[in-house]
Amino acid sequence: MSYRNLAVTELVERARTGDNRAVGRLLTLVERGGPVADQIAELTHPLRGNAHVVGVTGSPGAGKSTLVGRLLAEWVAQGFRPAVLAIDPSSPLSGGAILGDRIRMDDVVPEGTFVRSMATRGHQGGLALAVPGAVRVLDAAGFSPVVVETVGVGQVEVDVVAAADTAVVVATPGMGDAVQANKAGLLEVADVFVVNKADRPGASDTRRDLQLMLDLAHVTGQDVDEHGTYFRPEIVMCTATSGDGAAATIDEIHKHMAHLKASDGLSRRRALRVRAEVRSRAERILMDHLDRAISESDLLTDADPNPVSTAESIVSRITGND
Amino acid sequence: MSYRNLAVTELVERARTGDNRAVGRLLTLVERGGPVADQIAELTHPLRGNAHVVGVTGSPGAGKSTLVGRLLAEWVAQGFRPAVLAIDPSSPLSGGAILGDRIRMDDVVPEGTFVRSMATRGHQGGLALAVPGAVRVLDAAGFSPVVVETVGVGQVEVDVVAAADTAVVVATPGMGDAVQANKAGLLEVADVFVVNKADRPGASDTRRDLQLMLDLAHVTGQDVDEHGTYFRPEIVMCTATSGDGAAATIDEIHKHMAHLKASDGLSRRRALRVRAEVRSRAERILMDHLDRAISESDLLTDADPNPVSTAESIVSRITGND
Repeated sequence: MSYRNLAVTELVERARTGDNRAVGRLLTLVERGGPVADQIAELTHPLRGNAHVVGVTGSPGAGKSTLVGRLLAEWVAQGFRPAVLAIDPSSPLSGGAILGDRIRMDDVVPEGTFVRSMATRGHQGGLALAVPGAVRVLDAAGFSPVVVETVGVGQVEVDVVAAADTAVVVATPGMGDAVQANKAGLLEVADVFVVNKADRPGASDTRRDLQLMLDLAHVTGQDVDEHGTYFRPEIVMCTATSGDGAAATIDEIHKHMAHLKASDGLSRRRALRVRAEVRSRAERILMDHLDRAISESDLLTDADPNPVSTAESIVSRITGND
Repeated sequence: MSYRNLAVTELVERARTGDNRAVGRLLTLVERGGPVADQIAELTHPLRGNAHVVGVTGSPGAGKSTLVGRLLAEWVAQGFRPAVLAIDPSSPLSGGAILGDRIRMDDVVPEGTFVRSMATRGHQGGLALAVPGAVRVLDAAGFSPVVVETVGVGQVEVDVVAAADTAVVVATPGMGDAVQANKAGLLEVADVFVVNKADRPGASDTRRDLQLMLDLAHVTGQDVDEHGTYFRPEIVMCTATSGDGAAATIDEIHKHMAHLKASDGLSRRRALRVRAEVRSRAERILMDHLDRAISESDLLTDADPNPVSTAESIVSRITGND
């Protein structure tokens, strides 16, 4: 039977009862966007809320995918039903490395889990809409934790990880990763640090660098959020290739979730997440209006339009303030 | 006398008569954005149109800044009055290398030219608004050519170079730059290729790679635009550190301009540029409307809003279709 011909309502029903082909088809439709993706959002919105969303990021080559594979196996052993959404960045310069990561992760994906990679396809804003939609599908289908894995090179990727319930930042020895994480704003969003490849020289230096930066952030109060809540990220030493440290990483991820539940952190994080999604959706609708208004304007025929007044008059077409 | 207290009209008047301090002050105000930047756009719009806008891009470390310094000296020797707008990327991962480039260029900036670097400051869309505004100021002040130099790593940077009258792509031997340029979409936008560091091993291989890719693009018709115009980019071998090839690079840039003027390419490119700017300006106005609509909505108090219907209702506040 082809899943291409199934109605979206039927796909959602099947996804809820553990049909992974239906989940895969829904994710394809979410990634494609448009009215069908909106319909899936409407249908899965009331069904979500139980998944622990874990963001994982780090430089290319930090061994994120191997680590995530180990975490999956450990979660399955503990009776969880985890899923992974791996974001393929659109940058042509890093495409190759990520493809390599993807293949390496496939080697270690355990039975009973769901792994899906999602390409951003280069269109701006696509990621901001597709990721929350895909996470909601996996959540509605009963997966938890839902891991969102990105390469932490751009603001969009940092935002995706920051929007998770728990943000895991992966560093490696000898690459100045601690300093880079600090620059990229990852230090502020991290709830758990993993120093991967901990069997390599320099691992303890990387740990010390991270500790120093966490100490500094604490002294200056940067790590206390607007509600006065303080959570100091733990630093876990890990060797993903052998599996050492995977269980300890999971312990820290679970401890962070317990902290969120004990404070009002969980509801606050989820409210921020839905607000960001609403904003992205509203932006997309407005950009559609803009495309239409531009094509209906005389911008295409005027040889020398004044950029300021022309932009204002195009906006007036949308807001109706002619 | 402090230029901070001068009216914008006075600054524009002074900039036109060769006062570079006034030009610098105008660029600061353009970079800052807002109503004052709009006013500068209104004032300089009727004064522009004479500058030859040259985009220069390439990987970090390709020697772009040294090359641009050589081009400046050569243009000055030929009686031109060139200016450079160097875009500092916001990515924290490449910040260091660019700073290094900047310092190297300052060493070779000749008398009688104007060089300014512009930080993107991380806010999305900032570059898309500030660059055309800054180019217009330099144009109105009588500079030509106006060089816009970027690091070709992201779509925004490629777009900036593609929006120039003439796009120069700098490659170097032994870094797979030809292949990277192809992936990043630079091959399609390039009007002149420079193989810099041509005294290094592998320079002729890089030239051959570029030629092969240009041949392929020609066979498949990718290099012919929608008007059927064909311009095959020349490949110039250059050693910017010694100055070899700088004059040849300028010859090719001028030849491309002559081609644009002989066809209707120049007016078409400039129309595309102003359209892109109008779109960016309209986007910014719409995003301001969106911020206001979100803050006036009940999104901040609703604990569990439906993302689809909430986004639609926020857009209705802007379009007036309640």
